[in-house]
Amino acid sequence: MHQPQVTAFRWVPAFAQGLVRDLRVRWALEEAGQGYQEHLIGPAQQQSSDYRQQQPFGQVPVLKDDEQTIFESGAIVLHIAEQTTALMPSDPALATQVKTWMFAALNTIEPPIMMLNVIDMQPPAIAQAAHELRANVAGMIGVRLNSLAAFLGNREYLAADRFTSADLLMTTVLRILRTTDLLATVPSLDAYKSRNEARPAFQKALAAQMDTFERHAPQQ
Amino acid sequence: MHQPQVTAFRWVPAFAQGLVRDLRVRWALEEAGQGYQEHLIGPAQQQSSDYRQQQPFGQVPVLKDDEQTIFESGAIVLHIAEQTTALMPSDPALATQVKTWMFAALNTIEPPIMMLNVIDMQPPAIAQAAHELRANVAGMIGVRLNSLAAFLGNREYLAADRFTSADLLMTTVLRILRTTDLLATVPSLDAYKSRNEARPAFQKALAAQMDTFERHAPQQ
Repeated sequence: MHQPQVTAFRWVPAFAQGLVRDLRVRWALEEAGQGYQEHLIGPAQQQSSDYRQQQPFGQVPVLKDDEQTIFESGAIVLHIAEQTTALMPSDPALATQVKTWMFAALNTIEPPIMMLNVIDMQPPAIAQAAHELRANVAGMIGVRLNSLAAFLGNREYLAADRFTSADLLMTTVLRILRTTDLLATVPSLDAYKSRNEARPAFQKALAAQMDTFERHAPQQ
Repeated sequence: MHQPQVTAFRWVPAFAQGLVRDLRVRWALEEAGQGYQEHLIGPAQQQSSDYRQQQPFGQVPVLKDDEQTIFESGAIVLHIAEQTTALMPSDPALATQVKTWMFAALNTIEPPIMMLNVIDMQPPAIAQAAHELRANVAGMIGVRLNSLAAFLGNREYLAADRFTSADLLMTTVLRILRTTDLLATVPSLDAYKSRNEARPAFQKALAAQMDTFERHAPQQ
């Protein structure tokens, strides 16, 4: 088999560095011990009809392997996880638990976090006018984080008593809170995130993304 | 096999009726020709530690079958789809396309739509103060809807040239826009949604949810 190809951005501004969704795919491939090629794109390719045929929303990542082209970070991580026990146990009931928590990361925890992110990225006047809304959204996130922490309790991982693709996605979702103090208010969750970030596969994936941005940083 | 059990709310206010996420599971089971039992809960059960052990966030739906208890509507629909060709082709490459669009529905299209929904559900003074933010979020949704419509083109379905669990999820996501005029601005997408809603399995699922709410409506 040829090495799969991961499409990622050549460069993004600092606020997005270390958060772009190809990090999820790089991490999954590192956990699986699978080498990959980078395919780097910029704003022009993002808008091109050629790229839209691979990724209808012009986003990254896209994964191309010998068999097919896949988009959506969640779908790509699931695809990789289905091919290796490094990310998901082969037992069907345990695999279902892992997939449940993958969806929980992306459809229960991430949406309110992205909502806060969108508010904080607005021009200052618009963000300021929405400060009461922001407080309510932060409250919604707090409720979800506390529920998540209550579930985790003394567990080290979300499912199957081991690191899985569910922890991978949840960790990348919790990282989006890095410009807020919300995670610091739930220390057990902060520790959970740090524990997963300490994995060598995460460190390699993050370094690969950051190195790319450094190599392509705009000239001063 | 015993009939699976679907946990749903006994009653919700009108604005949420026809949108609560157990609709996705009811619809999937109807498409699969699988009968089910309802397990109805109210706010007290939602908060109970017993229920939190099944659903850590206190949400619905939960699916219980002979083998296990699953939460997250996306994970439940995937679990059902993996057991029947009614919702997902058995060909692995086509199944991957279906799963890709399932994640696109829940992680690319739904989050900005839910953001608008959260803004519109705020107390009037807070929503009014956030009207510029709302316009920007509506713009983000418009961009995504147009990308989705461009992908669909003359296609009837998202993946595999047939109705799948991807169309099921996407349709339930687009329905959340019913109190806005955003979908009306993309007629092909509005038609796509209506086409899927016309399926007998959807109609049965919607009727089952609405009947439950009618039976348990608070006394005037």
